Amino acid sequence: MNKEITSVQNTYIKALVQLKEKSRDRKKSGLFLIEGAREISLAIKGNYQIDTVLYLPELFSEEELNSLDIQSNSRIEISKEVYQKLAHRDTTEGIIAVAKTKTHDLKAIKFKSDQPLILVAEAPEKPGNIGAILRTADAANVDAVIIANPKTDLYNPNIIRSSVGCVFTNQIATGSTEDIISFLKEQHIVIYCAALQASEIYTTQDFTTASAIVMGTEATGLSNAWLQQSTQNIIIPMQGEIDSMNVSVAAGILIFEAKRQRNFK
Amino acid sequence: MNKEITSVQNTYIKALVQLKEKSRDRKKSGLFLIEGAREISLAIKGNYQIDTVLYLPELFSEEELNSLDIQSNSRIEISKEVYQKLAHRDTTEGIIAVAKTKTHDLKAIKFKSDQPLILVAEAPEKPGNIGAILRTADAANVDAVIIANPKTDLYNPNIIRSSVGCVFTNQIATGSTEDIISFLKEQHIVIYCAALQASEIYTTQDFTTASAIVMGTEATGLSNAWLQQSTQNIIIPMQGEIDSMNVSVAAGILIFEAKRQRNFK
Repeated sequence: MNKEITSVQNTYIKALVQLKEKSRDRKKSGLFLIEGAREISLAIKGNYQIDTVLYLPELFSEEELNSLDIQSNSRIEISKEVYQKLAHRDTTEGIIAVAKTKTHDLKAIKFKSDQPLILVAEAPEKPGNIGAILRTADAANVDAVIIANPKTDLYNPNIIRSSVGCVFTNQIATGSTEDIISFLKEQHIVIYCAALQASEIYTTQDFTTASAIVMGTEATGLSNAWLQQSTQNIIIPMQGEIDSMNVSVAAGILIFEAKRQRNFK
Repeated sequence: MNKEITSVQNTYIKALVQLKEKSRDRKKSGLFLIEGAREISLAIKGNYQIDTVLYLPELFSEEELNSLDIQSNSRIEISKEVYQKLAHRDTTEGIIAVAKTKTHDLKAIKFKSDQPLILVAEAPEKPGNIGAILRTADAANVDAVIIANPKTDLYNPNIIRSSVGCVFTNQIATGSTEDIISFLKEQHIVIYCAALQASEIYTTQDFTTASAIVMGTEATGLSNAWLQQSTQNIIIPMQGEIDSMNVSVAAGILIFEAKRQRNFK
């Protein structure tokens, strides 16, 4: 028989609430929460290890749970109260997994192709934008997404949610801007920085060879370290009243121009 | 001397709070709130009429107010309490305008070019996505944005905010899907529907003639009315684990493919 927890005062449940809310607790324990069957499936596909599964039987049956084929250490039935305490979204999913975080070392990146296409985002802030970027990277099947000087850990529930689980389907590395630049240079990858100054229109550039498209923040753009090491700055022509697009939209336009040039291969 | 209001119990202030919060009140009165100097400037540039300006002198001086060159009926000094009641954002802008809504008739659209490029979004829901789409449309200087079967009015404070004022810089029309299709057909505008079925890869299509790019919702796509009247369905190849991109990112990719084909003219 499965274990059961019905009290929100339970120590384990309290610890899980901390995992949901605090980056520090996720880092310390190496654990994080995943909500929803679809997201959990994508995490399993992405080789994330599931430690524990918690489910609310009235919303998520044991048969459904079996069909998910989760190799976890334990299953815990929880009460509605406990579920509501743990759930991040206002949903009726009824299932939450405790999973092990991965390390995201640059050195661990395995390119899928000889001429990799990489998306780099420096210090992105809004989870909604990070999520949208990860969805685009998944759709484009880029070789890797690299986050420079991350402001938040990847296992923030808002990122998992807004990425619709694409945080698990992409190969993601994090690192300092300096380390990432060294890595790209060593690998002979052309660095295209999205920037306003000294830029060429993005469609005039060749993205068919090993390329990294590097995006800064909407507010301040890329740091000088990137601009100094840029192979070529690129720009999307802006012909309106406003001088900035949403960063995830701009990333999508640049990545898919590269995909067009590569005949979507 | 300018008028002054210091009480949040003031009837006029209470009415303005309703304007901020309720679409119904905006529709009934034909008035809405704009927060921030930049947004107000863009609205003035977009020929919106400003009815009243309210400002908190400690954050926004009378000199700054004069420099904005607003032709409004009246200026009202407000207290910090009143400002906090009216402000939607947690900012230090110190200025709010009461402006008159516009009608957004299809018939009033004036094309900037012989071969207009139009972005149509059917029933978009999230203000964040609508805002990002309007920023992209501004950057691309499209001829018009048309919202079919709108779920919310354009003067929702979240749309104004997330569009960074691009709700004022674009020519925007709203209407029923049926009326918009008739309008596009009358004007001999090619209808490209973003859809999964019977679709050609978007880069194989010619967007240099009069074109409307039509986007549905992430959840359910376009309605049958659009799919039946589509000149050609188009698709962005999806090569990842997930079958949907963020709608504003997808719109950006399609619109900027059209811009590329038009040499950004």
